[in-house]
Amino acid sequence: MHALDMIHLSDHRLAERYAAVRATTRALADGLSPEDCQAQSMPDASPVKWHLAHTTWFFATFVLERWRPRLPAFDPSFRVLFNSYYETVGDKHPRPQRGLVTRPGLERVQEYRDYVDDAMQELLHTAADDTALAALVELGLHHEQQHQELILMDLKHLFSCNPLLPAYREAAAPRSAWPTAPQPLRWVEQPAGVHAIGHGGPDFAFDNESPRHDVLLRPWALAHRPVTEPEYLAFIEDGGYRRPELWLSMGWDIVRTRDWQAPLYWRQAQDGAWQVFTLRGERALAGDVPVCHLSYFEADAYARWAGARLPTEAEWEVAAAGLSLLQPAANTLESDALGPLPAPAGDATLSLAQMLGDVWEWTSSSYAPYPGFHPAEGAIGEYNGKFMCNQYVLRGGSFATPASHLRASYRNFFPPDARWQFGGLRLARDLG
Amino acid sequence: MHALDMIHLSDHRLAERYAAVRATTRALADGLSPEDCQAQSMPDASPVKWHLAHTTWFFATFVLERWRPRLPAFDPSFRVLFNSYYETVGDKHPRPQRGLVTRPGLERVQEYRDYVDDAMQELLHTAADDTALAALVELGLHHEQQHQELILMDLKHLFSCNPLLPAYREAAAPRSAWPTAPQPLRWVEQPAGVHAIGHGGPDFAFDNESPRHDVLLRPWALAHRPVTEPEYLAFIEDGGYRRPELWLSMGWDIVRTRDWQAPLYWRQAQDGAWQVFTLRGERALAGDVPVCHLSYFEADAYARWAGARLPTEAEWEVAAAGLSLLQPAANTLESDALGPLPAPAGDATLSLAQMLGDVWEWTSSSYAPYPGFHPAEGAIGEYNGKFMCNQYVLRGGSFATPASHLRASYRNFFPPDARWQFGGLRLARDLG
Amino acid sequence: MHALDMIHLSDHRLAERYAAVRATTRALADGLSPEDCQAQSMPDASPVKWHLAHTTWFFATFVLERWRPRLPAFDPSFRVLFNSYYETVGDKHPRPQRGLVTRPGLERVQEYRDYVDDAMQELLHTAADDTALAALVELGLHHEQQHQELILMDLKHLFSCNPLLPAYREAAAPRSAWPTAPQPLRWVEQPAGVHAIGHGGPDFAFDNESPRHDVLLRPWALAHRPVTEPEYLAFIEDGGYRRPELWLSMGWDIVRTRDWQAPLYWRQAQDGAWQVFTLRGERALAGDVPVCHLSYFEADAYARWAGARLPTEAEWEVAAAGLSLLQPAANTLESDALGPLPAPAGDATLSLAQMLGDVWEWTSSSYAPYPGFHPAEGAIGEYNGKFMCNQYVLRGGSFATPASHLRASYRNFFPPDARWQFGGLRLARDLG
Amino acid sequence: MHALDMIHLSDHRLAERYAAVRATTRALADGLSPEDCQAQSMPDASPVKWHLAHTTWFFATFVLERWRPRLPAFDPSFRVLFNSYYETVGDKHPRPQRGLVTRPGLERVQEYRDYVDDAMQELLHTAADDTALAALVELGLHHEQQHQELILMDLKHLFSCNPLLPAYREAAAPRSAWPTAPQPLRWVEQPAGVHAIGHGGPDFAFDNESPRHDVLLRPWALAHRPVTEPEYLAFIEDGGYRRPELWLSMGWDIVRTRDWQAPLYWRQAQDGAWQVFTLRGERALAGDVPVCHLSYFEADAYARWAGARLPTEAEWEVAAAGLSLLQPAANTLESDALGPLPAPAGDATLSLAQMLGDVWEWTSSSYAPYPGFHPAEGAIGEYNGKFMCNQYVLRGGSFATPASHLRASYRNFFPPDARWQFGGLRLARDLG
Repeated sequence: MHALDMIHLSDHRLAERYAAVRATTRALADGLSPEDCQAQSMPDASPVKWHLAHTTWFFATFVLERWRPRLPAFDPSFRVLFNSYYETVGDKHPRPQRGLVTRPGLERVQEYRDYVDDAMQELLHTAADDTALAALVELGLHHEQQHQELILMDLKHLFSCNPLLPAYREAAAPRSAWPTAPQPLRWVEQPAGVHAIGHGGPDFAFDNESPRHDVLLRPWALAHRPVTEPEYLAFIEDGGYRRPELWLSMGWDIVRTRDWQAPLYWRQAQDGAWQVFTLRGERALAGDVPVCHLSYFEADAYARWAGARLPTEAEWEVAAAGLSLLQPAANTLESDALGPLPAPAGDATLSLAQMLGDVWEWTSSSYAPYPGFHPAEGAIGEYNGKFMCNQYVLRGGSFATPASHLRASYRNFFPPDARWQFGGLRLARDLG
Repeated sequence: MHALDMIHLSDHRLAERYAAVRATTRALADGLSPEDCQAQSMPDASPVKWHLAHTTWFFATFVLERWRPRLPAFDPSFRVLFNSYYETVGDKHPRPQRGLVTRPGLERVQEYRDYVDDAMQELLHTAADDTALAALVELGLHHEQQHQELILMDLKHLFSCNPLLPAYREAAAPRSAWPTAPQPLRWVEQPAGVHAIGHGGPDFAFDNESPRHDVLLRPWALAHRPVTEPEYLAFIEDGGYRRPELWLSMGWDIVRTRDWQAPLYWRQAQDGAWQVFTLRGERALAGDVPVCHLSYFEADAYARWAGARLPTEAEWEVAAAGLSLLQPAANTLESDALGPLPAPAGDATLSLAQMLGDVWEWTSSSYAPYPGFHPAEGAIGEYNGKFMCNQYVLRGGSFATPASHLRASYRNFFPPDARWQFGGLRLARDLG
Repeated sequence: MHALDMIHLSDHRLAERYAAVRATTRALADGLSPEDCQAQSMPDASPVKWHLAHTTWFFATFVLERWRPRLPAFDPSFRVLFNSYYETVGDKHPRPQRGLVTRPGLERVQEYRDYVDDAMQELLHTAADDTALAALVELGLHHEQQHQELILMDLKHLFSCNPLLPAYREAAAPRSAWPTAPQPLRWVEQPAGVHAIGHGGPDFAFDNESPRHDVLLRPWALAHRPVTEPEYLAFIEDGGYRRPELWLSMGWDIVRTRDWQAPLYWRQAQDGAWQVFTLRGERALAGDVPVCHLSYFEADAYARWAGARLPTEAEWEVAAAGLSLLQPAANTLESDALGPLPAPAGDATLSLAQMLGDVWEWTSSSYAPYPGFHPAEGAIGEYNGKFMCNQYVLRGGSFATPASHLRASYRNFFPPDARWQFGGLRLARDLG
Repeated sequence: MHALDMIHLSDHRLAERYAAVRATTRALADGLSPEDCQAQSMPDASPVKWHLAHTTWFFATFVLERWRPRLPAFDPSFRVLFNSYYETVGDKHPRPQRGLVTRPGLERVQEYRDYVDDAMQELLHTAADDTALAALVELGLHHEQQHQELILMDLKHLFSCNPLLPAYREAAAPRSAWPTAPQPLRWVEQPAGVHAIGHGGPDFAFDNESPRHDVLLRPWALAHRPVTEPEYLAFIEDGGYRRPELWLSMGWDIVRTRDWQAPLYWRQAQDGAWQVFTLRGERALAGDVPVCHLSYFEADAYARWAGARLPTEAEWEVAAAGLSLLQPAANTLESDALGPLPAPAGDATLSLAQMLGDVWEWTSSSYAPYPGFHPAEGAIGEYNGKFMCNQYVLRGGSFATPASHLRASYRNFFPPDARWQFGGLRLARDLG
C-alpha cells in the first residue's frame, strides 16, 4: 500500500501523523549542541536551528494565522526571521546571514515548536472536517520532511568544514551481511511507447508533479543498480577529471576553477588511499556502496565515460512505476544507516534494485513545468514553480529521505554544480 | 523550395556558395575602422577581427590541413590564436583577452582570408567528388553564417558602450508601408497529438537537430506574431520589473542585482520617453515592431504577466513546419533592415506571421540532446553537444540571420540571462 | 636591550595579574549563550569562543610547551585549530571558517582555559626568577587584553546583523551628570621642535613602539576633545557623503560602492531621526558623545570639511606625553560604560580631555616601522611588523580597552576602510 | 608662495618647449597601428589613443576654455570622453571602458591634437606676460610627460598579453661597452642629522613636493646601485617566493592568490632558463641590469632576505640632493634604451650610480602629505592630494622618464601590489 494512501485521514489520524513527523525532526537534533545548531557553513545551507524554526513557521504562518487568528504569536518577530523565500509573505531575513541570528537560541526555538505544536494539536482535534486545513497541514508535513533531509545535508557539510571531522552519529558496527564480491552491472530492458507520468491519484503530491500526462519513450534499458564507489574510482583513475572530452563545457570550467578531483567529501590520504567523510565519520572506500555527492556534471561525465547516459526523468518514472517501491529493505531515513548501502545480493533476477532510497539519482532532465502545469494560488504557489530554471531533476530519494515522503512521481532538483545533496547516478542506454 | 535543398551541389556550385558566404562576411565589415574591429566589449563577445579570422581558421584547420597538407600555413601562430573552444585541437587563446591581440592587425587578417579563400577555391574546383570535403565545407559555411550574426550582435554591444552611441549604418528612410494602427493579437490553434520534429532530410543540419523523433503535443494555440515594443512597454508600466511574483526566482535575483528596468538598449530620457539603441542609431519606440533584446527571464515574466506562456521548442517547430518559411517578405539579413520590422498588415487570415526572421523567439525548452543524439566524431563533435546545459532554446532566426541558414528545425540557444542576442518572444497558451 | 627583558615583577605579582586578566576575559563572556559565542559575522571578526580559546592557545603554545614540555596537551588538535596567523608555528585553520568549528563547544573551551590556567599558576609560582618567562607571560597578557576589546567589537558587529538588534548588556540608567549644553571646541597649542616618541622605559610595550627616537614637529594645535555625534551629524546634513571633493579618491569609491551614508551602526528611522546601535541596544543620537565607528576615510573627510586635519601619530604622542593619562575618570573597559561618554564639563582650562579611552583617534600616519625597528625573534616576531602596510594608526584607546593596556606610545592600526573598531577622531591644525 | 607662480620663461621659450614635448608624445606612437592604440589591457592601463587625447584634453579644458573662450570646441563630446578623474570638471567616462571607444579613431584624435596645438601656439605667442597661463601650461607639459611614460608602461603590458609577444621597437645591437663581470655592491655612508627635503626653488614642481621642510635622519648607508637581475634571481632560487617569513602579511597573501613566482614579465622556459619580456622583445636574463617590474611587496621581501631594508623617501632625497643628477649618461627616455642598463663600470669611487633613470626605486614611505601641504585650488588640486592613501613612494625616474621631468624631490607613487610600472629597488641599511 502506498504511504500516501493515508491522506484521507480522519483528523485524528492527521494529528497523529503531525506528531510523528514533528518528533522525527526533533530526534534528528538529538545530541547536537547549541553550537552545532547555530552554524551555517555556506549560503546554500542553513543552521539546524533555522530548520527547526522555519518548519514551525510554516504552520504558524499558513495554518494558525488563518484558523486561529486570535492566538497570540509566540514572538511576532519570528514571522520575518524564519521566512525562507516567500516573497508574498513579506520581508525575509537574508539567507546567507541565517547563521548570525544567535538570539533566539536553540532552547527558545524548541519552545516555539512546543507552542505551535500544542496549538496545532488542539486545532487538528477540533476542525474535524476542514479539507482545506487538512491539505495545508499535509503540505506542511511534507515540507518538514524535506527539511529533515536538509538538516542532514547541511550538518554533514558543516562538520566537513571542521578540521576535526566530527561524526554526527557513531560508526555502525561492521555489516556481516554485506556482499563481499562486486556485483556486475545488469541492464534491464524497459518498455517503449506511450506512458503516463506525473501524479494522478488522490494522495498528496507537490504541484510540480502535476498534471499527469503522456510521454513517448524509445526503446531503452536501465542499470539494475546505481554506480558504486569502486566503479567511480575507476573513472578517476582513468583520468576522468583531466579529460575535457568527457565533460559538458560548463562542467569542465568548474572542474578546473574549483579544482575538483573527486566527489565531495572524498579525500586522498598521503598513502594514496581514498577516504570518504560520512555522517558516521571518515571511512575507507567501501565495497559496492553507491557513490554519493556527485554533481550533475560528474554524473554526466561518468556516464559518457562508461559509454552510457543518464536516464530522463520520464524514463526513470516509467521504470519505477512498475515496482513496489516501498520494500521493507529500502534504505531510507528509517533505516538509520545514514549513508548508502550495497545492493542486496539476492537472486539474479532482472528486477531493479535500490530505486528507492540510498542515493538520489540524477536524470538528464532540466527541471521544467509539466504540460498544463499551474502553480497553486497564493504564497503556497511559490513552492516549486519559480525554481524551474537551470536546475536538473533527481529521482528516488536517499538514505536521508523519510519513506512516507517518497513516490515514483517525486521530483527533486538541484543546480548542476551542487554536490552537498545525497546524489549519485544510475546508468541508462538506448536500445535498438 | 527549401534553401538547403541545394546541398546536393556540384563542387562548382559549392565553390560559388563558398564565395558568396565569404563575401557576405566581408561586406559586414565594410565601413568599420581597424579600431571598430579590434575592441571586445565583454567576455561573451568577440572583436570583429577575431570573427573574420576565426571563420577562416575553421577552413584552414579542418579542411586545408587535411586536404592540402603540404600547403604552407599562412602563419603557424594563427592555429592557436584563432581557435575558439575546440579542446581537441589543442591550446587556445583565452576568450576574454581576444580584444588584446592587436597584432596581427585587420589588414593582415584580410590577407589571411584571401590566402585561405584562394586555396579553398582551388580545392573546391579540384576535389569534385569528395563528399567528406563537401560536408565539412558546408558545415564551415554554416559556421560562418552564425558568425555573421555574431558580428552584428557584438558590434551593437560594443557601440552601445561608447557614450557617443555611434550608428553602424545610417538610419533608414521612414517606411511609408508600415502599418499605422496596432494589430491586435490573434491566437492560432495548433494541432495536438503525435508529431515528428528534428531534421530528417538529406539537407544540411547541425548535429543537435537530430535524430528526427516523435513528440506528443496537447491542444494549444500560438500567437500569430511576436510581442511588440508597445505591448512590452505596457508590462513595464504595469510594474513588471518590480513584481517578484511574475518572475522565476533566479530571474528576480538578477533583476535586482543588475538593476534591470527595461530590455537591453532601452534608455529612458529625462522626459520619460523611451529610446532604443539600434544598429542604425538611437530611435524612439516604434509602432508595432517586435520587442528585442530580452533575456529568457524577461520573456518568461512577460508571458506570465500576459496570462500566457512560452511555447516549447517542439510546439514551435510543429507550428512552423506547416508554413512556407522562406516567404520573400521575411526580414532576414538579406533585407538589410538591421532591426525587426512590424508584422505585415495583410488580410486577417489565421496564418502565423514572422516565424522566420525579425527576432529569435525564446521557447520554454532547456537545450538538451534529442533522444538518441550522438555528437559527431572528432573536433567537430564539440560543436553543440557540450553546451547542452543551463541554456534555453530560441527558434526562427532574426533580422541578422542569413535566410539560407534557417529552417524549421534550427535550434539556437543562450543562457537565460543573456540579452545581447536578437531575442524576443511569441506567446502560447493551452487549449481545452 | 629588548623591551621585554625589562619586566621587573615578582612572580607572585605576575601570577595575580595573570589571574585578573584571565578573569576579565571570562567575565566579558558572562551572559552569552553558546550560540552567541559561536557565530562569526564576517571574515575580519572571530567568534567569542575562538577568542577564548586563542588567548589560551598563546600560553599553551609559547609558554607551556617550552617550560612544561612534559605536560600533556589538553587536546593536540587545538594547536592548529586556534592558531591565528603565526606562519612559523605551522598550519592554521582558515580565518573565515572560524565560525564553523562547532566542536569543541563553549563548555569544552572553558575547560581548556581552566586546564591551562592551572598549569600557568603552578608555573608562575615555581619559576620565580625566569625573566624570559615573565616577558612572555606579560606579552600574553597584553595579547589577551587586545582580544578583550576584540570580543566587544566582534560581538557588537554580530548583534548588529541580527534583525532583532539584541543588546549585549542592559541599557544604563540615564546619567544626570551629563552636560546638557554642547561644549564648544577649544584648540590647545602644542610645542614645536624636536621631541622623542616611542617607548623607552622599563615597562612593557609592544615591539612596534620601539625604538624611542626623535621627531621634528612644526607649530600646531590639537582640539581639546574628540568630534561629537552632533558635530558629525552636521557634516552629514551638509552633504558630506555626497561631495567628492571632501574625500580621498579611494574613500570616495568606497562611499559609492558600499553606499555609505553615515557611520557604521547609524540608522535613519522613517521619521528621519538617527538611531545608533550600541552594546546596550539602539538609542537616539546622544548629546556630546564622541562619534564612533568611523573609517579613516570618514575621519579624514570630516577633518577636511571642518577646515582642519588629522594629527600625525607623532603629534598625538607628544601631546599625550605631557598628560597624566590614567586619570581615574577615564572611560576605559573598567568603567563599564560600554560606549563613549561626553567630555567632563569641568572648568574651561586649556588641558586636553578624553585622550585616553572613549574612542580610538585616527591619525594621518600610515602604520610603519620606527627608524631602527627590528621585530622580535621567532614566532613572536610575527606580532606586528608584518602588518605594516596599508594600515593607519589610531591612538588613545577606547571605552573597551583595559586601562592597564594603554600608554601614550601605544599604536593601534586598521585598514582605512575598517569601521567595526571603536574609532573616532580629534581634529588638529597647523599654526603660524 | 605657490610653486607655480615661479615659472620665469619667456613665452617664446615656453612655446618651443610645448612643441617639443608634444612632438615627443607623437613620436612614441610612431609605428603603432590603430589597433595597437585602441586596446586596453587592464583597468589600470589606458589605450595609447586615450593618452594622446587626454593630454590634449588637459590643454583644451584648463587652458583654452579660459584663455580662448570663443574658440569652438573641436568636438564638445570630448570634454567628458577624455576626462580622467577630475570630479570637479563633471562627468567622466568610466575608466575600465576606455578601450571600447572605437570612435573617434586614431586619425581623428591626431586631428584633435593638431587643432589644439595650433590654438596653443597662437596663444603662447600672444599672451606674453601671463604668469597664470605659463604656470598652467608648464603643469600641462609635465602632465604630458607623465603620460609619455604611461604610454610605454601600458603598451608593454598590452603586448605582453599577446601570445605572439610583439616587440614595440627592434632589439638593440649588442653593447660591447657593457661590463662583463658583475660589480660587487658597495655601501655609501650617508649623513645623519637634520636635512631639508621637498621642493624649494623657483623651478616647476608638483604640489605634492611642497612645502620644503626639515627631517631628522639617523646614521645610515645606501647601496651604490640598484639590485640587479642576477641578484634577484638568487632570491628566487633561495625560495624567496615560498618563504612567508620574508614577506609582509598582505604581500604573502597576494603571492599565493596570484601565484607570483618572479617579477612581472619574467617567464621560465621549459629548459628552466628565465626569459624577460621587454619593449624590444623577449630576451634572456642580462648581466648586471637592474631588476625591474617589482611590486613594493617584492622589493621589501628582497631587502629583508638581503639583510637590508628599503630607504625612506627622505633618505633617498637627501642622498640624491648632493649629486649632480642630470649626468649625460643617465638612462632616461632620451637614451632610447627602452629598458634599464648596467651601472657604468668606472672607477671604484664611493659615489652613487644610477640614482636617475633606469628604474624607479621603491622607498618604504607611504605616500602622504608633507607637513603644511595644501592642494592647489580648483580642479588642478585633484592632481595629487586625493591619492595619498595606500600607495608607496618611488624615486628617481626610469629609462622611460624624460630627463627634464625629473628632480631629486620628485615623488612617484603606486599601490604596493602594482608591478607594471618600471620599478626596482636600491638597498639601504642602518649604521651604528
